[in-house]
Amino acid sequence: MELFNYFRSSASYRVRIALALKGLDYDYRAVHLAKNEQFDPAYASASMSKLVPLLRDGDALVSQSMAIIEYLDETHPEPPLLPADALGRAQVRALAQDIACEIHPLNNLRVLRYLGKDLGLDEDTKNRWYRHWVEGGLEVVEQRLKAHAGQFCHGDTPGLADCVLVPQIFNAKRFDCRLDHVPEVMRVFGNCMALDAFAKTQPSACPDAE
Amino acid sequence: MELFNYFRSSASYRVRIALALKGLDYDYRAVHLAKNEQFDPAYASASMSKLVPLLRDGDALVSQSMAIIEYLDETHPEPPLLPADALGRAQVRALAQDIACEIHPLNNLRVLRYLGKDLGLDEDTKNRWYRHWVEGGLEVVEQRLKAHAGQFCHGDTPGLADCVLVPQIFNAKRFDCRLDHVPEVMRVFGNCMALDAFAKTQPSACPDAE
Repeated sequence: MELFNYFRSSASYRVRIALALKGLDYDYRAVHLAKNEQFDPAYASASMSKLVPLLRDGDALVSQSMAIIEYLDETHPEPPLLPADALGRAQVRALAQDIACEIHPLNNLRVLRYLGKDLGLDEDTKNRWYRHWVEGGLEVVEQRLKAHAGQFCHGDTPGLADCVLVPQIFNAKRFDCRLDHVPEVMRVFGNCMALDAFAKTQPSACPDAE
Repeated sequence: MELFNYFRSSASYRVRIALALKGLDYDYRAVHLAKNEQFDPAYASASMSKLVPLLRDGDALVSQSMAIIEYLDETHPEPPLLPADALGRAQVRALAQDIACEIHPLNNLRVLRYLGKDLGLDEDTKNRWYRHWVEGGLEVVEQRLKAHAGQFCHGDTPGLADCVLVPQIFNAKRFDCRLDHVPEVMRVFGNCMALDAFAKTQPSACPDAE
């Protein structure tokens, strides 16, 4: 398998964690977003969206980080990244989507570029925007973890929701977001980071890290 | 089952379509977002996110529209809303996420409110923002449909991706977005709207429609 990704992309980091939890080998293909390599014709054509990550598995191309992780979970079932019961699966997917649909989309590179270049907002206003969605969004995650978490987001083994949560915390730290209001989030984050699958795939450990 | 939702919420409409495709009965519970009913303490506490939709199934509460639809697909498997093969499932999920993670989050009510109230942007600038993400995002969907679509987003039966696509087109029309650049999208949209499951659950057909 090949993973087209970028060290600083949190959606990419989600998939790196999942691959590591599964113990799967892959070739790391760097796509430097800040240098606009996602617009190179070959990558743009393969990805269609000009976004990372993109997984190549034989002839198959799979995009969108949560879809990639579910694909890996279906094609390499052990260890499972989703619970066995329908309600548990729904809770884990909903938690992942609370981050991937409510927090992250507002704060990725192309949105920050639009806020700056097209809307002319200054750095302070952009940072306020960023923190607003992260800090408020994590309050929702905090409530869900208080209701359902074990050692990890759901029970005592890491799964899909942890793959999505941890990269969001890296982003939050990078933009100096408040995190003292979400102790459950930070407890789970700490438990995750004690595992190699999370620690050894973090942005600073990537081959393309700067 | 009870569905807490709002006629104009496109995430709510996704779930109404899925319930209709499955032929499932439910009690329609209106949560009027424009009147801020999502902040009522009972609803805020049940949903945690103060967002719609929210499905109550017996004692279980499930949030996040895509998680709800997968939950319905697992608990009521016929007719299936996802293909049987892992790659097909990944393509359908990725297409749904191209809309639910890349287009819709930038344009929902709370984001438009922030752009207006907190950033002080005028209506024209807000509409330009809205159209930018919808029109560009649908170009990606168009390419994916050219590669994979049948009569519907994936093959010749409607599924998860169609549940997510159709409400996005309703939003696009409401905000006068360009749609002539995405003929495949509009072909699939037309095929969907010919079915009762899509037509009879549309915003204007809801009990709380204005």
